[in-house]
Amino acid sequence: MKAFVANSSAIRAMFEEGKLMAKKYGSENVYDFSIGNPNVEPPHIVEEAIIDVLKTNRPIDIHGYTNNAGDEGVRQKLAEHINKLHNTEYDYKNFVLSAGAAAAMNVIFKTLLNPGDEVIVFAPYFGEYLRYAGNYDGKVVEVRPDPDNFLPDLEDFRAKITSRTKAVILNTPNNPTGAVYPEDTIIKIAEILTQKQNEFNTSIYILSDEPYRDIVYGGVKLPFVPRYYKNTFVTFSYSKSLSLPGERIGYALINKGMDGFDDIAAGLNVATRILGFVNAPSIMQRVLPYCLGATVDISIYEKNMEIFYDMLKELGFECTRPGGAFYLFPKALIEDDKEFCGAAKEFRLLIVPGASFGYPGHFRAAYCVSRDTIVNSYDSFKKLAEKYRR
Amino acid sequence: MKAFVANSSAIRAMFEEGKLMAKKYGSENVYDFSIGNPNVEPPHIVEEAIIDVLKTNRPIDIHGYTNNAGDEGVRQKLAEHINKLHNTEYDYKNFVLSAGAAAAMNVIFKTLLNPGDEVIVFAPYFGEYLRYAGNYDGKVVEVRPDPDNFLPDLEDFRAKITSRTKAVILNTPNNPTGAVYPEDTIIKIAEILTQKQNEFNTSIYILSDEPYRDIVYGGVKLPFVPRYYKNTFVTFSYSKSLSLPGERIGYALINKGMDGFDDIAAGLNVATRILGFVNAPSIMQRVLPYCLGATVDISIYEKNMEIFYDMLKELGFECTRPGGAFYLFPKALIEDDKEFCGAAKEFRLLIVPGASFGYPGHFRAAYCVSRDTIVNSYDSFKKLAEKYRR
Repeated sequence: MKAFVANSSAIRAMFEEGKLMAKKYGSENVYDFSIGNPNVEPPHIVEEAIIDVLKTNRPIDIHGYTNNAGDEGVRQKLAEHINKLHNTEYDYKNFVLSAGAAAAMNVIFKTLLNPGDEVIVFAPYFGEYLRYAGNYDGKVVEVRPDPDNFLPDLEDFRAKITSRTKAVILNTPNNPTGAVYPEDTIIKIAEILTQKQNEFNTSIYILSDEPYRDIVYGGVKLPFVPRYYKNTFVTFSYSKSLSLPGERIGYALINKGMDGFDDIAAGLNVATRILGFVNAPSIMQRVLPYCLGATVDISIYEKNMEIFYDMLKELGFECTRPGGAFYLFPKALIEDDKEFCGAAKEFRLLIVPGASFGYPGHFRAAYCVSRDTIVNSYDSFKKLAEKYRR
Repeated sequence: MKAFVANSSAIRAMFEEGKLMAKKYGSENVYDFSIGNPNVEPPHIVEEAIIDVLKTNRPIDIHGYTNNAGDEGVRQKLAEHINKLHNTEYDYKNFVLSAGAAAAMNVIFKTLLNPGDEVIVFAPYFGEYLRYAGNYDGKVVEVRPDPDNFLPDLEDFRAKITSRTKAVILNTPNNPTGAVYPEDTIIKIAEILTQKQNEFNTSIYILSDEPYRDIVYGGVKLPFVPRYYKNTFVTFSYSKSLSLPGERIGYALINKGMDGFDDIAAGLNVATRILGFVNAPSIMQRVLPYCLGATVDISIYEKNMEIFYDMLKELGFECTRPGGAFYLFPKALIEDDKEFCGAAKEFRLLIVPGASFGYPGHFRAAYCVSRDTIVNSYDSFKKLAEKYRR
């Protein structure tokens, strides 16, 4: 664990430094774009649902253990909601309620991985994926992106698949780039995996990690990955869609007809128990049926994105316009992204080096912050740009 | 994972069988003592606290991320409560809020264990300990009890400690026996460990797993283990004290002055994050300060215990009277406890073989059930006894 703790200290140090800076300069004078902590209020239905759950059930039923995989009635309602959205034929057995997507991924990896099994990630990627796979001795293999649009380089992907490849993590809309993979990319990924499964006579599973599924812009329609590839899990969290990141509620979807479905479903159930989750928090399980289809006001994030994107472009930053999520991932103005993010602190800007996402030379700026933070950071970004543009 | 799933199937099979039996005979005619699921209502303060938290905070604050180790204000109030009870000097840094005791133990083992490190358990023990330690490649070493009172055989304990011993799990009040270790036992365990630490020049940690701390009978006073041994963690859950097992809220206490305190505290923080807990459910964190010192009505469990214990004694079962928790652990009437529990089903009795707790020849009967279930099971236990007493 000492190595993990040391690795974690960079972001923690930034967090601590942010707090110190806020104390020194006043929090309104520190422009903290470091953390993906939703700032848009949850929809009212969440509070109404909690009150109604309390009013209409016995406490012992609200707060008691559920099945490890979650309450069957709640899972069935979730299945019916997903069926309506995606024209699928799921029932409760296709869903395991989890303490968010992070929990769902741990539970899936505990079930799938044997030591040395390979897990493919597409750079840039959410750094925690390394830990989730590493917790079960999975070996992470990186695939490089097309630097212009942050879609995966599919020839590199094809070359990286081996007989030990057990899983591939997709994450679209993407953290940190905001990229949304078009249908064509999903189709090609599915084709390559199907070929490789046949070639090696193995089962390779997609984990489609979709906490930002509902946060998409300009009417973008997200392909539903399980429709394209049978061996697909979806991991979902209500952290972003409903602004409930502290409550730890989400799910793993186990696609119908997946190789080894029964063993895997039983495995997810047992893994939920023995890893100590036991069940997803029960009051939030009971709140879920009220909130199916609800989201926070996405237009707030979209407007933030437009203002922030236009501002950075005007200041000369190279940046790909995101299709979703709430991050920009511009190119740093020097090669060393860590030095660049260090220099940004001089101007009271907190941004995260691309190296934390397996992709140096860039930085991540989270715009799930107040509009004022974005607008008022203009001068600081201007000075940062001038420092390196001279 | 396939092995885990297969191992789990015995209790799951019983659970399924119980449901089938309830359908066939009517649930009032099936006497299910198999599961430790609290049946006493949570105290009213829990519901009042949830409503008050919703009324007096912004939703974004209630449901947002907290620190991985939990909200500092909540942890500080918890520390002050524990200080009052046990005359200690803790602050928030001594507490990590967790998704129950199961989560706390996983997080601690992730932090402490390297592959092959040994974890000592005292038989009979909660079977999940094998998985929690096994998740991090810990090797579990069993110590036998004094069969008359289920206290650990301290000479066997001394003999089982090696240079690879990293942790010892205490669980008092005990699941499955209901035994409460007296102060003298704790003092001797601490002495032995201190000697062995010196002998091997190692640090050996106690995990004092105390989900049943508040469920004690006849004014029994539980020794507070950290006062007797410096390298002590306490893992606690509100599942039983407040009847909130579905909500997944509890804590790990890191004793002041423990060897490697700073590294360990940082490790628990990171482990909480990377195992996918991220933080204990946030609304329940905020409910905690309202409920410090509250418990369910313990007298209900005590009365259940007395009736059940007297009944089984009358029927000729050998049984140690429990000091706490909500289980009896009588001797089976034949050597093969699995066969015995199988035979019990003929009389619509669901009881769990001692083998599931590392101690064959006994069975566990959970009395966190309605009074009627206990009273009405008399004829069935009578017939079961007669079957083997003839």
